[in-house]
Amino acid sequence: MTHTDLSSPIGGLSNGVMVASGLEGICVTRTRLSRVDGQKGRLVIGGFPVEEIAPQARFEDVLHLLWFDRLPLPDESESLRRSLASERVLPAATLALLRAAAERATPHMDALRMAVASLSLAEDHPGDSSRAAQLHRAQALVARFPTIVAAYARLRRGFEPVAPDATLPHAANYLYMLTGERPDVDLVRALETYLNTVVDHGMNASTFTARVIISTRSDIVSALTGAIGALKGPLHGGAPGPALDMVFAIRDRAARSGHSLVDETESWVREKLVAGERIMGFGHRVYKVRDPRAEVLGAAAARLFEGVGDRELYGIVRRVEQVVVRVLHEHKPQRRLETNVEFYTALLLHGIGLDSDLFTPTFAIGRAGGWTAHVLEQIDEDRLIRPDAIYVGEDRHWNAA
Amino acid sequence: MTHTDLSSPIGGLSNGVMVASGLEGICVTRTRLSRVDGQKGRLVIGGFPVEEIAPQARFEDVLHLLWFDRLPLPDESESLRRSLASERVLPAATLALLRAAAERATPHMDALRMAVASLSLAEDHPGDSSRAAQLHRAQALVARFPTIVAAYARLRRGFEPVAPDATLPHAANYLYMLTGERPDVDLVRALETYLNTVVDHGMNASTFTARVIISTRSDIVSALTGAIGALKGPLHGGAPGPALDMVFAIRDRAARSGHSLVDETESWVREKLVAGERIMGFGHRVYKVRDPRAEVLGAAAARLFEGVGDRELYGIVRRVEQVVVRVLHEHKPQRRLETNVEFYTALLLHGIGLDSDLFTPTFAIGRAGGWTAHVLEQIDEDRLIRPDAIYVGEDRHWNAA
Repeated sequence: MTHTDLSSPIGGLSNGVMVASGLEGICVTRTRLSRVDGQKGRLVIGGFPVEEIAPQARFEDVLHLLWFDRLPLPDESESLRRSLASERVLPAATLALLRAAAERATPHMDALRMAVASLSLAEDHPGDSSRAAQLHRAQALVARFPTIVAAYARLRRGFEPVAPDATLPHAANYLYMLTGERPDVDLVRALETYLNTVVDHGMNASTFTARVIISTRSDIVSALTGAIGALKGPLHGGAPGPALDMVFAIRDRAARSGHSLVDETESWVREKLVAGERIMGFGHRVYKVRDPRAEVLGAAAARLFEGVGDRELYGIVRRVEQVVVRVLHEHKPQRRLETNVEFYTALLLHGIGLDSDLFTPTFAIGRAGGWTAHVLEQIDEDRLIRPDAIYVGEDRHWNAA
Repeated sequence: MTHTDLSSPIGGLSNGVMVASGLEGICVTRTRLSRVDGQKGRLVIGGFPVEEIAPQARFEDVLHLLWFDRLPLPDESESLRRSLASERVLPAATLALLRAAAERATPHMDALRMAVASLSLAEDHPGDSSRAAQLHRAQALVARFPTIVAAYARLRRGFEPVAPDATLPHAANYLYMLTGERPDVDLVRALETYLNTVVDHGMNASTFTARVIISTRSDIVSALTGAIGALKGPLHGGAPGPALDMVFAIRDRAARSGHSLVDETESWVREKLVAGERIMGFGHRVYKVRDPRAEVLGAAAARLFEGVGDRELYGIVRRVEQVVVRVLHEHKPQRRLETNVEFYTALLLHGIGLDSDLFTPTFAIGRAGGWTAHVLEQIDEDRLIRPDAIYVGEDRHWNAA
């Protein structure tokens, strides 16, 4: 038996002895939710280029687009907002679990996984598998993500959770539950742009996890719990903090050494490359050119820092980015390592006022929209996802052991 | 763009426009843990044919085989037993969550998912990613599955949980925590045979889920939580009860009608087929011939019912099975629908004294061994699993919307 890795983006399988390692380039399903074109650096969400929809749409309207395959009419938009707002409260046992987690300083994504796993406690008709019931479950889950994240963020800092305000939309209410104050409109717009940008992204590992789980005809709570587990991994969504930490580290080192920011960035990146370390915030398995989400979030950050934010920090980040991309290109000319979504996620969410331990949970708040839409799509497809593996172990016998 | 489903077991992919629907026949990785030969009806676990190892090995020794790729020496066997026994106690918050779930009559598998999701509360060094730390986490998780399942089973019936007994092995202690009494040796042997039989089974949907999650460099608690979510689906492990329910229904109908069991079975199956319903307990996506696990569990059931069990029931089950297989063959001569693992799982676990709502959680107790071994294998492989999807949605523009 021979074993051959497929390193081309699309690999051919012939007679069962080749391994599609990592499933790279293997198309597992059709979807109408998003199109990722890694070669051209394009992302389409529900039919719209991400550059067009993310900065303009309300998050609830993007949810409607994904769930119903069209933007809502004005009264449908209001109706969906109210419906989501009415589902935000957590079961008492979920909140008790978050308190116990906070006492042990459990990481935020572990707390989110535990809390979402417990949300079948909030379901009234678990046996109803009608389309309407599944859609209602999907909506209720998406509605509760910000409540969990905000409650846990406050508990970790020693504050009591703030109850949701049903008069506020999804994004505004999340910021309100974090701070207890009604947020500035520019911050809400920046957050909605972020949530819209990351709401869906093809067959990424967390979305795929959710689809594999629901493909056994399991339930949506199980599917989203699994997806959170995949998202928390550093190779997926679990490491957006370090990109900004790098900028801060370089800025501080330049201030101490008296070197220019450009020189300090250059020597910092070269040190990391010599040590064989990865530069966080650059490069993406799918995008071979610039990640279109980085463009959208960069523009949103420019607007935000123009208004309420720290303009100097914005300038520093842009200059660091340029130097890193140049040095990476000199280091590996044959491979384009462009700024990825993590880099501008960190800048934008920092500008909104979020601590870095909230970056991945906030990613999950956005992506929950895509996860639920994919789960509903997979329920319609109704085909078990079950690949094969090649056995490479020994042959043994019990009596000879 | 054309879209073609691959219906052959191994499908060819050429230029990115074909969909490997369900990933059937796509080999995603190499594994030394188990070999499933669906054409020949053979299953190898850690190198051993399932018929040889399952009825003879201790469950802890099978765990050692999967985790370390060899059977343990006697002192290693004892050491692993003691080590697992020392990890059984649940965090207080996990038990509190189970109490809240029991108050709402949450299904057993949802309760297991919630409880396992919370087990990072029991971790002392979450940041340690060394091989030893990962192995210890795997062992601690496997050790706690029976404690969760037994505690919840008792809470659902209105009883207090029974604390684990560290002097008892894994399987015996599970039965002890369910009943509060030290179990009969024949029951323990039957249960160990079952756990060994289902401990691993190639790249099934739950195992695959665990590998996808850990492939993002996430954590083992997340991977096993996701796997439970996949296992609970009726297309995977979530429906072993109905096979035995069918036997009881046929037996009762025969008693009422005065017809022979054979005649009653025959008419019952034909009614179901005319109504387009699936006969639970027969047929498997992978096995085209008799499922080797059904043989092992059938033989274990024969031994068990010979000793402590209900011999009449065993005879009824065997006769019903023969008639169902014959009628199914007459109905679809081109397709062999043989008895699958669910059918004899139901009989054996019923004989051990488990209620049908414990069948799938007990499956999870066994499969946790395979899940953890696959997770450790995937950690070594360290390759992100991320397939593609084909976009089939519309092209839209924001201003034209």
